[in-house]
Amino acid sequence: MNYNCSLKRYFGNSIVYIFLILLIPQDLLAQTDPVFKPISADIIKIPSKVLGEDRKVYIYLPPADTLQRDKRYPVLYVLDGDNHFSLMAEYCRYLSRRDVNVVPEMIIIGIPNTNRTRDLTPNHSIIDYDGKPDTSSNSRFKSSGGGNNFLQFIGTELIPYIDAHYKTQPFKIFAGHSFGGITTINCLLTQQDMFNAYIAISPSFWWDNGYLLRLADERLKNNRVMNKRIFYSDADEGMSLSSFHTNLVKFDSIITNRKITGLDHKYVRYPDETHMTEPVKAYYDALRFIFR
Amino acid sequence: MNYNCSLKRYFGNSIVYIFLILLIPQDLLAQTDPVFKPISADIIKIPSKVLGEDRKVYIYLPPADTLQRDKRYPVLYVLDGDNHFSLMAEYCRYLSRRDVNVVPEMIIIGIPNTNRTRDLTPNHSIIDYDGKPDTSSNSRFKSSGGGNNFLQFIGTELIPYIDAHYKTQPFKIFAGHSFGGITTINCLLTQQDMFNAYIAISPSFWWDNGYLLRLADERLKNNRVMNKRIFYSDADEGMSLSSFHTNLVKFDSIITNRKITGLDHKYVRYPDETHMTEPVKAYYDALRFIFR
Repeated sequence: MNYNCSLKRYFGNSIVYIFLILLIPQDLLAQTDPVFKPISADIIKIPSKVLGEDRKVYIYLPPADTLQRDKRYPVLYVLDGDNHFSLMAEYCRYLSRRDVNVVPEMIIIGIPNTNRTRDLTPNHSIIDYDGKPDTSSNSRFKSSGGGNNFLQFIGTELIPYIDAHYKTQPFKIFAGHSFGGITTINCLLTQQDMFNAYIAISPSFWWDNGYLLRLADERLKNNRVMNKRIFYSDADEGMSLSSFHTNLVKFDSIITNRKITGLDHKYVRYPDETHMTEPVKAYYDALRFIFR
Repeated sequence: MNYNCSLKRYFGNSIVYIFLILLIPQDLLAQTDPVFKPISADIIKIPSKVLGEDRKVYIYLPPADTLQRDKRYPVLYVLDGDNHFSLMAEYCRYLSRRDVNVVPEMIIIGIPNTNRTRDLTPNHSIIDYDGKPDTSSNSRFKSSGGGNNFLQFIGTELIPYIDAHYKTQPFKIFAGHSFGGITTINCLLTQQDMFNAYIAISPSFWWDNGYLLRLADERLKNNRVMNKRIFYSDADEGMSLSSFHTNLVKFDSIITNRKITGLDHKYVRYPDETHMTEPVKAYYDALRFIFR
């Protein structure tokens, strides 16, 4: 190929060349453009005994590596699958390209919701984010509090299924936004062997007047060893929702001040983003942090 | 639906509700999750007389709006289609969702390369980015300089085809990275009626020892009226490639200092990104700038 000969003229050595290809600008890689392929997903249904229902999950697989047929991949599980799966898969695909190469190729598992409030809240509560109980007869909080059951589904049914059917490495990431954010943090606090890294984008610490902050304060004891990574962030959530920020500052202070060995953490605030635009920036920064 | 009744209890008024739905957090919108659909693209071939070859293009269309069957959309044309089309389509899809709603729904056109150096360089030159001529017999620069011809293809064949076959608005954006970045800037300088907004991510101003900077200096005269938007950026391109930054500072200074009416511009530097990771952040920031 043209660019190959042209580089050899400069560098003359294929070992040097292999290193340099990671540094040179895209212009020199023109001929290596892959052909566009849409992000496609296996869609499977797992009959969950724990949840008493079939659960659909989306699975993105990296392109087959014909040179390493036994290659195994880290796995990223992302909540709110219908909202965030394809963005996460697109990020991982782009960022793991040979000429970008800042995260490894990964298997991405998107978990869409059936009853979001039931599955993504750690305990039963009818207290709204204004601190007042929602006592209406059709309150969406009626079904709340299934979070630990949902984590049991992930830990005892979903992860074993994925590990049995796909070429997984042990390294696993758990990512969520808002209610999904308190779910990943609840998992860190209560089911510590399940994941190696956690992403919590604007976690809804307002839930039950700070239930999860109290749990964090209780569980994140001094002198623990965790060997995990966690990225968390907030945005401009508006005046009435500024508890997203004040609560996350409290959580960050707990994590920072306790002497926990190996709990590598990063907090980013996005003052120019809304609650809903924040995931675009935060998922990217989280991936870069976890694989820096 | 549950969340609807719950909100009405608080706000009691459907007009207020329509406004508030843009502000409330995702937690309240749980039941509105769309079902995951992969980014899919029409792939068409345009027989180009200008280029003397068939040109493949990728076309992403927003989901049909059954309530507004005659709805028309702005169009974003992105170069290096095989590299950047699906990321851009994913961004536009996510950011135009009803509960995110910071950019309009758009038609995205990805233009993959056949001969990148030929099409994405504004003039013929064999000078490499180190300032020295590449005189090798198989130099990749041999074919350079077809950029204006390529713009003629876009302006007289591609855009008319898209406008004839899809529900387009007149508003058009032209986005490119590296050689694609000098192509969008060359278009701004030489074919000013073609687009309304431009994105140039780390434009390769090193091309022909600054050819395009000289052209900008000549064409961007005082007291012109342009009524356009342009976003440009650079990254940490490495010591040997720092001309990406110094040249872009010069370009920014030309744009800033000339008194051009209506040329709305934004320059962002990404010191923590590489030449190849930069597009992830910059395309997002560019879309937010253009539709702010």
